[in-house]
Amino acid sequence: MNAPPGSLPVSYADVADAARRLAGIAHRTPVLTSRTVDERTGAQVFFKCENFQRMGAFKFRGAYNALAQLSPEARRRGVLAYSSGNHAQAVALAGRLLGVRTTIVMPEDAPAVKLAATRGYGGEVVTYDRRAAAREALGAAIARERGLTVIPPYDHPHVVAGQGTAAQELFDEAGALDWLFVCCGGGGLLSGCAIAAAQLAPGCKVVGVEPAAGDDATRSFRTRTLQTVHNPDTIADGARTPSLGTVTFPLVLAYVHDMMTVSDADLLAAMRYLWERMKIVVEPTGALAAAGLLAGAHDTRGRRIGVVISGGNVDLETICGLIT
Amino acid sequence: MNAPPGSLPVSYADVADAARRLAGIAHRTPVLTSRTVDERTGAQVFFKCENFQRMGAFKFRGAYNALAQLSPEARRRGVLAYSSGNHAQAVALAGRLLGVRTTIVMPEDAPAVKLAATRGYGGEVVTYDRRAAAREALGAAIARERGLTVIPPYDHPHVVAGQGTAAQELFDEAGALDWLFVCCGGGGLLSGCAIAAAQLAPGCKVVGVEPAAGDDATRSFRTRTLQTVHNPDTIADGARTPSLGTVTFPLVLAYVHDMMTVSDADLLAAMRYLWERMKIVVEPTGALAAAGLLAGAHDTRGRRIGVVISGGNVDLETICGLIT
Repeated sequence: MNAPPGSLPVSYADVADAARRLAGIAHRTPVLTSRTVDERTGAQVFFKCENFQRMGAFKFRGAYNALAQLSPEARRRGVLAYSSGNHAQAVALAGRLLGVRTTIVMPEDAPAVKLAATRGYGGEVVTYDRRAAAREALGAAIARERGLTVIPPYDHPHVVAGQGTAAQELFDEAGALDWLFVCCGGGGLLSGCAIAAAQLAPGCKVVGVEPAAGDDATRSFRTRTLQTVHNPDTIADGARTPSLGTVTFPLVLAYVHDMMTVSDADLLAAMRYLWERMKIVVEPTGALAAAGLLAGAHDTRGRRIGVVISGGNVDLETICGLIT
Repeated sequence: MNAPPGSLPVSYADVADAARRLAGIAHRTPVLTSRTVDERTGAQVFFKCENFQRMGAFKFRGAYNALAQLSPEARRRGVLAYSSGNHAQAVALAGRLLGVRTTIVMPEDAPAVKLAATRGYGGEVVTYDRRAAAREALGAAIARERGLTVIPPYDHPHVVAGQGTAAQELFDEAGALDWLFVCCGGGGLLSGCAIAAAQLAPGCKVVGVEPAAGDDATRSFRTRTLQTVHNPDTIADGARTPSLGTVTFPLVLAYVHDMMTVSDADLLAAMRYLWERMKIVVEPTGALAAAGLLAGAHDTRGRRIGVVISGGNVDLETICGLIT
């Protein structure tokens, strides 16, 4: 609400373009409501369920939107991503759909199920020893050597625009909202959704929610200076990012109304609540926005609230260890 | 497909009436699809997600439809149900919505969470010592003494008609189907859905799925004579019923195409698959129909398949104990 929109790296027109690219390819995920949640919060809550998105998280939107805009030459050479999480699978799946070869750099001790899932989508996995090599340096070296385009997990205009389509669909289905809660790691989903909100529901206040241990974005937002955090200890593995990026930070400053943090205990309680009462499988990071709403720090009673459930890729054994 | 429909206790008109009674009161639950499931089965599968129904299971449909048809006098006196499971909560909630006092007879050692949920919906819980008293006798005595109407969990025409609305909505949304898989305990959901199928998708073959340890309905179907099972040892707690009923058995014989059983191991694997791949929380009984489809015993390749996910009320600790 500060910078003049013209100077920003992503506009609503980019989100609308992304929506056209994703039509019929990304799932138009369901918007769920719950009388139990409404009674608890005193609000009318609309959950945009990106845990039902292809490959299980919103990340598919941004990855596909980025790959679809590569030049024919770049497509022919292929792309590279480094990720141990949902971005890896998103890029691999987008590559398969667009006929683009994908190379994914993952730590050799990544969960076997994630390595298998990424390979299952057709990605070539390059593993490395976390103690011996820095992921970014290794990724950059491979990309340079092979002529691959690096697809960053959040700090790229096409990625941000793609993620914003989640909120666009939510407003399309639920109508105008008073508040929208979105999780925040690197800020790709948050800034994309906030851009959509500014256009489609101008009165809607967007709140970014991050884990307390990784509160860099909240501090950055408050100080208006980019803050970082090193390898934060949180169960929200999708929000262990070191900082907002050069693309996402100005967008967050311009379009986001407030930032907040939640403890891992509150996050786990929110996740469990979603499982038990709404019957949806949500990963810890995916429950951040719901935890932010349930924290009750904002004046949401009697209002229409949007909550983005960002993903549902969990290892059941790990979750059971946390729950029991 | 044998008895003349006119002689049967429930017709499609009863299901259509129930649908009008439930409109705006029961959730019209979402129908979910999954590319992963379609690839695995070679079919086009539509999951009717009654785990998203009010109180977490299809049982609300039948209970509400039964209570709504009581005489003013019977409403004034109140109703009684004996159940340690979803039927208890269904009757309690339906009673609250219709202003009918509900008494629920539950064993004193029922899970605290279920006792609390039933009381939370406004039901008066009467507990008993399982070793000292038979539930039916106790329930009948209380009902007689207080003048209450007993609402049976499945063996009642109004309950059957209510459950059939789940399939009616599925056909309405997905169109005609070639196969419909439905779980079977006492046969209320199965027979109601089969009646709807016969009317709305005449070519659709309906398959009832029950746990191998409680195979009474499959044996009854094959022998055309009512068979029983005593307290079967299965994780599908909603299908531990002793037998089909006098209302449901003739309906199953008339409208169901096939019956099958699945092992607890296959059931648990199906439940886990739904959690991990479709991101939905399903109780063991709720995964019976999906397990039946995944067993691959029917010629479903290239076909349009309906699967009713019947409920999602699980105790996470218990499930984690089974999974890990």
